[in-house]
Amino acid sequence: MRLSSLLFLVCFFTVAMSQCAAAAKARHFRWEVSNMFWSPDCEEKVVIGINGQFPGPTIRAKAGDTIVVHLKNGLHTEGVVIHWHGIRQIGTPWADGTASISQCAINPEETFTYRFVVDKPGTYFYHGHYGMQRAAGLYGSLIVDVADGDEEPFKYDGEINLLLSDWYHESIYTQMVGLSSNPFRWIGEPQSLLINGRGQFNCSLAAAHTPGAKQCAAAGAAGNRHCAPVILPVLPNKTYRLRVASTTSLASLNLAVGNHKLTVVEADGNYVEPFAVDDIDIYSGDSYSVLLTTDQDTSANYWVSVGVRGRQPRTAPALAVLNYRPKRASRLPAAAPPATPAWDDFARSKAFTYRILGRAGVTPPPPATSDRRIELLNTQNRMGGGHVKWSINNVSMVLPATPYLGSLKMGLRSALPSAARPSDTFGRGYDVTRPPANPNTTVGDNVYVLAHNATVDVVLQNANALARNVSEVHPWHLHGHDFWVLGYGDGAFRGDAGDAAALNLRNPPLRNTAVIFPYGWTAIRFVADNPGVWAFHCHIEPHLHMGMGVIFAEAVDRVSELPKAAVSCGATATALMAGAGARAGGHV
Amino acid sequence: MRLSSLLFLVCFFTVAMSQCAAAAKARHFRWEVSNMFWSPDCEEKVVIGINGQFPGPTIRAKAGDTIVVHLKNGLHTEGVVIHWHGIRQIGTPWADGTASISQCAINPEETFTYRFVVDKPGTYFYHGHYGMQRAAGLYGSLIVDVADGDEEPFKYDGEINLLLSDWYHESIYTQMVGLSSNPFRWIGEPQSLLINGRGQFNCSLAAAHTPGAKQCAAAGAAGNRHCAPVILPVLPNKTYRLRVASTTSLASLNLAVGNHKLTVVEADGNYVEPFAVDDIDIYSGDSYSVLLTTDQDTSANYWVSVGVRGRQPRTAPALAVLNYRPKRASRLPAAAPPATPAWDDFARSKAFTYRILGRAGVTPPPPATSDRRIELLNTQNRMGGGHVKWSINNVSMVLPATPYLGSLKMGLRSALPSAARPSDTFGRGYDVTRPPANPNTTVGDNVYVLAHNATVDVVLQNANALARNVSEVHPWHLHGHDFWVLGYGDGAFRGDAGDAAALNLRNPPLRNTAVIFPYGWTAIRFVADNPGVWAFHCHIEPHLHMGMGVIFAEAVDRVSELPKAAVSCGATATALMAGAGARAGGHV
Repeated sequence: MRLSSLLFLVCFFTVAMSQCAAAAKARHFRWEVSNMFWSPDCEEKVVIGINGQFPGPTIRAKAGDTIVVHLKNGLHTEGVVIHWHGIRQIGTPWADGTASISQCAINPEETFTYRFVVDKPGTYFYHGHYGMQRAAGLYGSLIVDVADGDEEPFKYDGEINLLLSDWYHESIYTQMVGLSSNPFRWIGEPQSLLINGRGQFNCSLAAAHTPGAKQCAAAGAAGNRHCAPVILPVLPNKTYRLRVASTTSLASLNLAVGNHKLTVVEADGNYVEPFAVDDIDIYSGDSYSVLLTTDQDTSANYWVSVGVRGRQPRTAPALAVLNYRPKRASRLPAAAPPATPAWDDFARSKAFTYRILGRAGVTPPPPATSDRRIELLNTQNRMGGGHVKWSINNVSMVLPATPYLGSLKMGLRSALPSAARPSDTFGRGYDVTRPPANPNTTVGDNVYVLAHNATVDVVLQNANALARNVSEVHPWHLHGHDFWVLGYGDGAFRGDAGDAAALNLRNPPLRNTAVIFPYGWTAIRFVADNPGVWAFHCHIEPHLHMGMGVIFAEAVDRVSELPKAAVSCGATATALMAGAGARAGGHV
Repeated sequence: MRLSSLLFLVCFFTVAMSQCAAAAKARHFRWEVSNMFWSPDCEEKVVIGINGQFPGPTIRAKAGDTIVVHLKNGLHTEGVVIHWHGIRQIGTPWADGTASISQCAINPEETFTYRFVVDKPGTYFYHGHYGMQRAAGLYGSLIVDVADGDEEPFKYDGEINLLLSDWYHESIYTQMVGLSSNPFRWIGEPQSLLINGRGQFNCSLAAAHTPGAKQCAAAGAAGNRHCAPVILPVLPNKTYRLRVASTTSLASLNLAVGNHKLTVVEADGNYVEPFAVDDIDIYSGDSYSVLLTTDQDTSANYWVSVGVRGRQPRTAPALAVLNYRPKRASRLPAAAPPATPAWDDFARSKAFTYRILGRAGVTPPPPATSDRRIELLNTQNRMGGGHVKWSINNVSMVLPATPYLGSLKMGLRSALPSAARPSDTFGRGYDVTRPPANPNTTVGDNVYVLAHNATVDVVLQNANALARNVSEVHPWHLHGHDFWVLGYGDGAFRGDAGDAAALNLRNPPLRNTAVIFPYGWTAIRFVADNPGVWAFHCHIEPHLHMGMGVIFAEAVDRVSELPKAAVSCGATATALMAGAGARAGGHV
């Protein structure tokens, strides 16, 4: 155990956290969320910003620090929440920032205070988790350094932060109406990809290498600062840590830097066994640290290229310039940008993903056995004729008006109106290679109640979508936990000895997001040791909106008294106002 | 007093309203508000609909009935409320449907029940009253017939309902961001005018008479049903009551019917002394009944034309067809549509407005004297350099997170954070003919506390806007009351004998909306006999959004216990959850 971890535990068990001020500090932020005009790819749109910025401000902290964000909702008629992606919220489940799950959405003109400990160094981010507000631009970076006196298990000279996203010109309001409409309207592919909130639409920074493309204004040109090219200044012969996170709405991405190798050292805030690659795949919800050494010809600059994988791309790659100082950034690389690997070369995708393993001597191994296995079949379905949904074990998730954390803790009957809990299995007869024989789905809460400290395996099973010969990539993200990714397989999971043999119990990586490949399955394991109510869902924004998720309710009776602001809506507010206040802190 | 009124009073004073079931009934509606695709002028946009309809369903009731609307919010992340425009909500101020004022906005997936008595026959409508949701299409008609056994003081053979509005192609989200931005962006003129939710954009039904215009598809043509021409079938030699209401966001309108005279008999749910005109002006928030006799050549159809007045028009008139049956509706009138009077012929506008008087023998006269006079100067101002606001006595109204009705009733300190109440006068030195010498404004709550049963005069004083030689029309709408319009004047109100002489205490009309003309003033009188918290504001949606309003808090201690759902947000919810529940019904 690292010194900082030990110190954190010591602090945790002393009643007065202030006694730990020397080791960890509280970092306060006052943020206001509002709609504003912005031009991420030089096309002006309404974007959700924080304190007038897009992306939102980067939070930088040290492991063990307490983050305190006073979040004012400056939207006119919309609620808002912010989820701190990858932060486990140990002991503070009400600060997880999921509307309908962990808290009541913050009303316009109201302020909610998020207060939580960032207990583990790593590359994180934050984003909206209500409706599709993430896709409207409500996101930013959250970087946690090692605690003072502690050291990363690798060396580097400098850092570069790359928050990746995709961008649509249709408003999220129009997108949401389309997804809910009958007939269904899909949002299509994004208009552009963004690096740190900036992208190129209808032009290329590398037009010389891109037939038919118009040249975008170069670095340093007078132009719209919102969409000025991203320049990443580096010095020769140094090693840089690139922190890369993806908060795309839809796109699976691939990142490469011309001429440079990338050594993967961190995934989702967990160290991994280092391995070198030419490029990395990064799915929505993923974060990575990769080391890059500036050991190339110092007379040139180099492209950073981010392109689409996993779906047939209709979006041009986003480019940035790795600028070897003291050369001018405006001198664009002479070489063509690295080509994004073929979108449907899933063998290549799997090869990358399978190389991600726990770091020897650092990543703890998983428990040898599990107490429960939940198998979740991901299918695309129809409802009411024209609505298209994503379903889990044939039930599409809908979220309630009253957040689960409050309603379950208060034992409200309205919390789980149906006595039937969702199934732990979808059976063995399902043919994952064909469109669903019966595509009809229903809606439900998809709440799984987990026993405290149970070791839980989840097998995510992919299948064919509604159209023939289509099975999509889905990156699933778990709140409140890291999990071990035990393994992957093609075809249907059978739970037999062969599948068991495919699982890695020796050095699996710890992550918070895991991808399921087309027609395949992914098995994860975690310990239900963090009382709270946690979403587990496909991180593709429209897929979640279409019901692709489940809820894990975990020892809610052990959750401390909830802040009133987290339960000041719906049935919890009604119950508390009716005089049930005495029960608010009670364990039910 | 009419029989129905007497019966209503009897019912009102019997404790059990159910005893009056024979005379008045409860009408129940289950509505769900949601965003949907719709093409009001054949251009598809996101529109707020009710039960999948735009405009929302028409409510039809009889005087004395109780309306019960179970309103479910089906929007994804936005709150919603509905205001019942013109209904005084006597004894039910929490049902007035004003966010931040009378109730907490209804959260997504929640249902709020509006229950109120429509005590007076007339032509009303309802609309959203949160952010600019009215401008997104959240509106519909509310028609109250006389009670059984009662009669209107005029005769007619049939009815035609015309709900008028204007329509923008920019979403309200974009509009709101522009209005709040620095530099300020004005919303501009509407793209089209709508009659019963249907309009023509980039084409004219009367292209033959409109140089350069493309002919719209005629009635009966296969096309988009959302924007099919409005056909108004009539029989020859009958008298029709046209119920006309305007819920425009911005536009002041004029309505004319080719070849036909219109006799005005009702304004804002109050009878007026009948008078005949060729056309009527109608401002946002107004409603009228006009009688039309189909005494013209039966071999033709006739245009109903609705055009813009009061601002330089950039929007084509909306046309509908008055269809003399059994002629086919598709036979368009051969004559040109009636021309809308010159937009800036304010002498003509005043002449129409000044003719509206209380109906002899029906409209009660006002109290002879008043207890208080509040003078409200309407100015356009700047704040923080680039923001443009509208202000009242130099303070631009902002609305709080916690609605006033709850916070004032519960005596919360947060309700009126400033001890200083807004001024009853702006002084006599202000030059209304020039841009403000000091254009800077501040924001405030603009809450006026009125003594119970006080007779209150309000003088609305118009002035020059920020630009030279500009003074705009503002129709002010009062919630919770009708008022007598005592008179109008040009220039600055001085409060002297000359101004007093201009007031009509003999037969002024009762209304709920009154216009102030450019550079002029309008004086109204009402009795503060309806405990509650009532908005009084310019009914132009962007003007209200820019702060053009005040609040009248009236004997809140006499308001009955508030429904919990009306106070389940903000400081009222916090106080009630903290155990102040016992105080909820208390009078503070």
